[in-house]
Amino acid sequence: MLRVLVLNGPNLDLLGVREPEVYGSQTLGDIEALVAATAADLGVTVSFFQSNHEGALIDRLHEAMGECDGVVFNPGAYTHYSYALRDAISSTGLPVVEVHLSDIAKREDFRKVSVIAPVCIGQLAGLGSASYTEGLALLVGHLQKEDE
Amino acid sequence: MLRVLVLNGPNLDLLGVREPEVYGSQTLGDIEALVAATAADLGVTVSFFQSNHEGALIDRLHEAMGECDGVVFNPGAYTHYSYALRDAISSTGLPVVEVHLSDIAKREDFRKVSVIAPVCIGQLAGLGSASYTEGLALLVGHLQKEDE
Amino acid sequence: MLRVLVLNGPNLDLLGVREPEVYGSQTLGDIEALVAATAADLGVTVSFFQSNHEGALIDRLHEAMGECDGVVFNPGAYTHYSYALRDAISSTGLPVVEVHLSDIAKREDFRKVSVIAPVCIGQLAGLGSASYTEGLALLVGHLQKEDE
Amino acid sequence: MLRVLVLNGPNLDLLGVREPEVYGSQTLGDIEALVAATAADLGVTVSFFQSNHEGALIDRLHEAMGECDGVVFNPGAYTHYSYALRDAISSTGLPVVEVHLSDIAKREDFRKVSVIAPVCIGQLAGLGSASYTEGLALLVGHLQKEDE
Amino acid sequence: MLRVLVLNGPNLDLLGVREPEVYGSQTLGDIEALVAATAADLGVTVSFFQSNHEGALIDRLHEAMGECDGVVFNPGAYTHYSYALRDAISSTGLPVVEVHLSDIAKREDFRKVSVIAPVCIGQLAGLGSASYTEGLALLVGHLQKEDE
Amino acid sequence: MLRVLVLNGPNLDLLGVREPEVYGSQTLGDIEALVAATAADLGVTVSFFQSNHEGALIDRLHEAMGECDGVVFNPGAYTHYSYALRDAISSTGLPVVEVHLSDIAKREDFRKVSVIAPVCIGQLAGLGSASYTEGLALLVGHLQKEDE
Amino acid sequence: MLRVLVLNGPNLDLLGVREPEVYGSQTLGDIEALVAATAADLGVTVSFFQSNHEGALIDRLHEAMGECDGVVFNPGAYTHYSYALRDAISSTGLPVVEVHLSDIAKREDFRKVSVIAPVCIGQLAGLGSASYTEGLALLVGHLQKEDE
Amino acid sequence: MLRVLVLNGPNLDLLGVREPEVYGSQTLGDIEALVAATAADLGVTVSFFQSNHEGALIDRLHEAMGECDGVVFNPGAYTHYSYALRDAISSTGLPVVEVHLSDIAKREDFRKVSVIAPVCIGQLAGLGSASYTEGLALLVGHLQKEDE
Amino acid sequence: MLRVLVLNGPNLDLLGVREPEVYGSQTLGDIEALVAATAADLGVTVSFFQSNHEGALIDRLHEAMGECDGVVFNPGAYTHYSYALRDAISSTGLPVVEVHLSDIAKREDFRKVSVIAPVCIGQLAGLGSASYTEGLALLVGHLQKEDE
Amino acid sequence: MLRVLVLNGPNLDLLGVREPEVYGSQTLGDIEALVAATAADLGVTVSFFQSNHEGALIDRLHEAMGECDGVVFNPGAYTHYSYALRDAISSTGLPVVEVHLSDIAKREDFRKVSVIAPVCIGQLAGLGSASYTEGLALLVGHLQKEDE
Amino acid sequence: MLRVLVLNGPNLDLLGVREPEVYGSQTLGDIEALVAATAADLGVTVSFFQSNHEGALIDRLHEAMGECDGVVFNPGAYTHYSYALRDAISSTGLPVVEVHLSDIAKREDFRKVSVIAPVCIGQLAGLGSASYTEGLALLVGHLQKEDE
Amino acid sequence: MLRVLVLNGPNLDLLGVREPEVYGSQTLGDIEALVAATAADLGVTVSFFQSNHEGALIDRLHEAMGECDGVVFNPGAYTHYSYALRDAISSTGLPVVEVHLSDIAKREDFRKVSVIAPVCIGQLAGLGSASYTEGLALLVGHLQKEDE
Repeated sequence: MLRVLVLNGPNLDLLGVREPEVYGSQTLGDIEALVAATAADLGVTVSFFQSNHEGALIDRLHEAMGECDGVVFNPGAYTHYSYALRDAISSTGLPVVEVHLSDIAKREDFRKVSVIAPVCIGQLAGLGSASYTEGLALLVGHLQKEDE
Repeated sequence: MLRVLVLNGPNLDLLGVREPEVYGSQTLGDIEALVAATAADLGVTVSFFQSNHEGALIDRLHEAMGECDGVVFNPGAYTHYSYALRDAISSTGLPVVEVHLSDIAKREDFRKVSVIAPVCIGQLAGLGSASYTEGLALLVGHLQKEDE
Repeated sequence: MLRVLVLNGPNLDLLGVREPEVYGSQTLGDIEALVAATAADLGVTVSFFQSNHEGALIDRLHEAMGECDGVVFNPGAYTHYSYALRDAISSTGLPVVEVHLSDIAKREDFRKVSVIAPVCIGQLAGLGSASYTEGLALLVGHLQKEDE
Repeated sequence: MLRVLVLNGPNLDLLGVREPEVYGSQTLGDIEALVAATAADLGVTVSFFQSNHEGALIDRLHEAMGECDGVVFNPGAYTHYSYALRDAISSTGLPVVEVHLSDIAKREDFRKVSVIAPVCIGQLAGLGSASYTEGLALLVGHLQKEDE
Repeated sequence: MLRVLVLNGPNLDLLGVREPEVYGSQTLGDIEALVAATAADLGVTVSFFQSNHEGALIDRLHEAMGECDGVVFNPGAYTHYSYALRDAISSTGLPVVEVHLSDIAKREDFRKVSVIAPVCIGQLAGLGSASYTEGLALLVGHLQKEDE
Repeated sequence: MLRVLVLNGPNLDLLGVREPEVYGSQTLGDIEALVAATAADLGVTVSFFQSNHEGALIDRLHEAMGECDGVVFNPGAYTHYSYALRDAISSTGLPVVEVHLSDIAKREDFRKVSVIAPVCIGQLAGLGSASYTEGLALLVGHLQKEDE
Repeated sequence: MLRVLVLNGPNLDLLGVREPEVYGSQTLGDIEALVAATAADLGVTVSFFQSNHEGALIDRLHEAMGECDGVVFNPGAYTHYSYALRDAISSTGLPVVEVHLSDIAKREDFRKVSVIAPVCIGQLAGLGSASYTEGLALLVGHLQKEDE
Repeated sequence: MLRVLVLNGPNLDLLGVREPEVYGSQTLGDIEALVAATAADLGVTVSFFQSNHEGALIDRLHEAMGECDGVVFNPGAYTHYSYALRDAISSTGLPVVEVHLSDIAKREDFRKVSVIAPVCIGQLAGLGSASYTEGLALLVGHLQKEDE
Repeated sequence: MLRVLVLNGPNLDLLGVREPEVYGSQTLGDIEALVAATAADLGVTVSFFQSNHEGALIDRLHEAMGECDGVVFNPGAYTHYSYALRDAISSTGLPVVEVHLSDIAKREDFRKVSVIAPVCIGQLAGLGSASYTEGLALLVGHLQKEDE
Repeated sequence: MLRVLVLNGPNLDLLGVREPEVYGSQTLGDIEALVAATAADLGVTVSFFQSNHEGALIDRLHEAMGECDGVVFNPGAYTHYSYALRDAISSTGLPVVEVHLSDIAKREDFRKVSVIAPVCIGQLAGLGSASYTEGLALLVGHLQKEDE
Repeated sequence: MLRVLVLNGPNLDLLGVREPEVYGSQTLGDIEALVAATAADLGVTVSFFQSNHEGALIDRLHEAMGECDGVVFNPGAYTHYSYALRDAISSTGLPVVEVHLSDIAKREDFRKVSVIAPVCIGQLAGLGSASYTEGLALLVGHLQKEDE
Repeated sequence: MLRVLVLNGPNLDLLGVREPEVYGSQTLGDIEALVAATAADLGVTVSFFQSNHEGALIDRLHEAMGECDGVVFNPGAYTHYSYALRDAISSTGLPVVEVHLSDIAKREDFRKVSVIAPVCIGQLAGLGSASYTEGLALLVGHLQKEDE
């Protein structure tokens, strides 16, 4: 059975509180429940981790080696400058799908560049919580194809 | 039944001929066969179109309105400068998934920027022909969710 | 009697469909009817051409030599990168007025630069369909003055 | 009866003296006479103002509120850096047509950018004194259309 | 008794008229009355000056030497390019607090850079008329601390 | 009674040790004592937190929601690149005053840009420890005005 | 017998008409006659193709595979932005010599960069029609050397 | 007898007051006395003008036509952005020597570019008040040579 | 006896696992053993610390004050953006030698800039594990010279 | 009989030694022998000169005036910054063909710009020693055409 | 008696030969004769040196220490990139006047920046050979003033 | 016995004379004596070479092949633009340590980039003459390790 880590970066613990006109009113718990339901449908295991600490996110990615088969990752604002997270992804060799709730290409300039994207297999943005569930489906499809 | 257009831009008709160390040895016909098989598995209809003409690709996107539910699009080199194709996508309002065979973020500088990406719901790059089949699955998943 | 070509670039065939909050609900047909009425008032002949193909727009400009006295041109997204259209204008030597429905200087960054403007006699932007009718009046005034 | 302000910025008082190979041999008086004649033909009132002082040009724009219906403005070198004049135009809400005697896009680099253009309804450049008369006609046409 | 100059730059005389969705409906007179009231509460004298002329603002800063103890300054659009005003501030040696009604960092790109800020002791932006009253309180607090 | 968090970022624990020609000889303890005294004068409660960890600073801002009414924040070197801290501030919705001991606009180039500033209500720099005490007064004045 | 394609891009059909002070008074027919004569001298076959359509030029390059041994190519304004033409050249693997009538490095800035050059074996510019005949000789010499 | 205008821009009226570690302790009066003495030695007439107003400096340059033979000009901070002053110099056709007290190339970045320099016959910087007296001698030598 | 801290930044705990074609197959343990052996040869004490947390690396540098005489530091990806680590080095005043296993100047663009380098006494790159041992020798030589 | 100078810049004396994976194993002597043979075939005289000194290359170009009819020049690394060599070429008025062994457009960024190219009649790159022999043939063809 | 070195950089030995429409028809010998005559008038000794070698120019500047009192220097194309010549000037401490025959600010972009200017006491450009004679007079006036 | 070349670039012959507040009062002879003493301690042979000529430095590096085992190199101002010296280093394949007396990263902007660094094994800056002696020790340690 495939195991997927769903990783969330800084300030995503405040979802539902934070600027609802940009991010919607769902909490991170709501989204994780939706993802868990999709995971059940797809027949895969998911574990969840959120941290505001860049280092803790790197540590968690390192631990995922061997323990997980792939990662759905919303790096939050670290998307735009954390070369350390980028290196963490390429170091572990895990397939990662980058997801964003809002369409980062349509907001402030600094949100237009993802330093994480070049080491991911796909990006999904602007679909709200569906970015997560569709990102999970994409990752699972990818892992199943590799498995054959 | 959902209908998907699989659209290919300039020089992709030479796949299998062109720089195999970068793009692999599969022909566009091989890839379209794979995509058709995946479409059959997913229970959706696919139609295919390739052109080296920017204008022909725009025309085809316009025709897809009403006729198709979404698009899997590899814009080739137009990815990097065709604001006209970008406008075509937002004009039609169709959900589009951008796909690339190779990891464009790891090649020449001019390939690092996609002017198309901000109007797509997702991007997939560097998975070879699987970029297309996984892109199709992603699009179909997205369309089915919207349908509910 | 003065003859004017009214030339429209990519995606303008979708006017009325496309992002009405940006471009309004008039169709290209509606605008052409307005322009024809203005032309009748001004006592000039107008012909219309729209294409999504950069090459077809260049071909049409070439044909306009001898056949027309001036051009009202909305180059759409080609405004921002088609040096080939710019060369076509200076090659033909026809006076051209560049028009845009929306105020391109207030939208995305890539829409702020017009590579066409330096070879035109005037630009009008942000007046909706009046950009066309006022652009026609401006061109006709200019041709009549030259004629004297 | 429509009232139009014809506003001229720095060094335009030296027209006819200054670099005739670039600006021609007409004086500002000659141009104002031409504009007055065109205004008479069009049945509108014109008033003229020239100053080398950025602040005086702003003051004059403020006074024009209520007193005039629109402005034909050659901002001279202020075109390229006076954000204060730009704000003056948007503050007053008056329709402004920006005019230049020479084709500013074909001269030194610093003359290629107009910080004024985004708040104007149209630009005319490179037509010599006809930039003013055609600019006036354009403005009057625009005001009459608004009036209907 | 401390004396403070409240200095306003170009187009601020049109407050209440100008783009109320950005700047609110208060006039400059309304704001000056609020500031005067706050000054009375704080036990300080205020004088007011507004000009659209960069040179007049510099002259006024020079006169303020000896006559005033500090300045609350909204340089309007001069914020973004007037190195002459910047030099005027450092020449006089007066403590200056820069204030803006709207949050300049959230508007057009050219409004993001303040060439004045490096010679001021503090900046306040986005608080509407409270930018002035809180700016005054900040300046007075600073002057009183220096006095001790 | 108003409650204010005084938050200090990386390396500020070494104040008094670190480059005294730039930062002065006061320790962070000395500054916190001054701030506490000012707080007492102003009749508000202050709590202090310093960390070298970006994530810990974000966590502390999150905890401050409900618990505090505003924040005086010296983000140290995170000022120049921590978009995650910026998001933390806008997520919590707390009014924040950014303070710096030295005038960051007069030092190395990388210190000239604050990615934090656009989400703060004011900035104070170059006043030494008075940046904190005056920043506190400014914040308290702002909170009291909001309260009315 | 070696076969060479002589390919001409946008607006070159207007040669002799277009800005003779820049491009001379020879028509494209004149130049093709000169090239045909040189080809006869060198004992090679030439075929000619001109189009204003980027896509048609790509199509023609694709057809040249197997049919021709090399290409003399004047891409006109596409020189400066057509990454699709660049990919077409590297896809076909044909040796290409890039030619220009005028010295593109001495004209407008946008003409200084050739995105085509990195995939060509040589460039010739500023020799008028001799750029074509010498380009042909260069290509033929190169093909003959490869043949040995 | 040659007549020279010595023109000083913004904030130079504060010389001797303003940042003496950068500009020295001489007042503008002291410098003008030195220049007058040098003028007497050289047998030329000098007139002096200082203003903080960009427009007043332009007006004075216009008046100098016919009245003066050349100008020694310290444009102060306008050096770095006043394209209107640059145009004023080229409009009048007067030979101008640009002078600065301090070495502007060794100070803040914005002081490194002179938009005035390309229309002057020479620049002198970093010699303190001798920049003026040597600038005067240079101008006079130049005018006498032209006279021969 | 001299004491040296050998500090390793993010993802270096994965050495031997991570992209061996770039970083070689030695683990961090292997490298630390080599460094310990070199330290023994040189007669100095070494302590080791690795963390993925920027804040933990800063904390460790702070603790090293008094406890260590110098630092051999491989900041990993923090090399390229951590101004906070840079400040930590200059705050502590400890001599630091920056080391990298691979030649960072020959890889991706973002790896070409070290924001740490300006506060270090030397850099070594591209020597594999010898970057550490030679970096240690360099630091020790430097400390012994200072000691004399 | 035509006389050609074959000029080689810095480090080309080390050919065959230097990075053979980039430049091949031929020595400069080998290449000069090939060029001499081609020259004999073409019926022209060649002389050779190599120097690591920019000044010596300029001197040699000056001497070539009158003595030679054209130059085949590989400027080595001076290609990228020697404006003095560029001026030397335009000063002498000699036709020059720029040659490079490797494809400079595919290597490090600094090798992508040639400051020499705008004053040459053609460039050849990436053909190994054939860049020289084909460059010679191109130059000779050009000189013979001029001769007619 | 004051001694002045007149130093000329690369390609100035070809004056009179080289592009006369830019540099005039005087030879370097003609200019040196003019300068010698001016020197005689001013009562100073001049020595002349020209070289195409950057190193030889640096050597000559070093020798000038003690032997000369100042330098009139036309660095030719080295003006734009020779930081070594710049350092040579500041190392010797000699006062240097930079001169150019043509107005370098009005030619190609690369000629607009002088890396030499910040270490010179003055620049003269665009006066033809008078740039040298007036530059000499300026230098002599400066040296005499220092002498007093 | 290992042989090391100590190479010094332009203006370093003036050490002790040149700007002592930046470079100290030691002459190049003093530094070479120190390096010779260190070499004796380390049991290696050193030879010295200084030139202001870029070409002479390249020639000397070429001669060093076979004759020396490594190089300690202070390229002076050539550090910042001599791609020819960079190529000389990679051509010879000799290990090179780049040294600077002052901390080049803390001075003018143009001194911040070293085009030499990417082909060196290490850099040392800001240690005065110890940059040379520690650079020598670093090189010798490196050569001895390679030898094992």
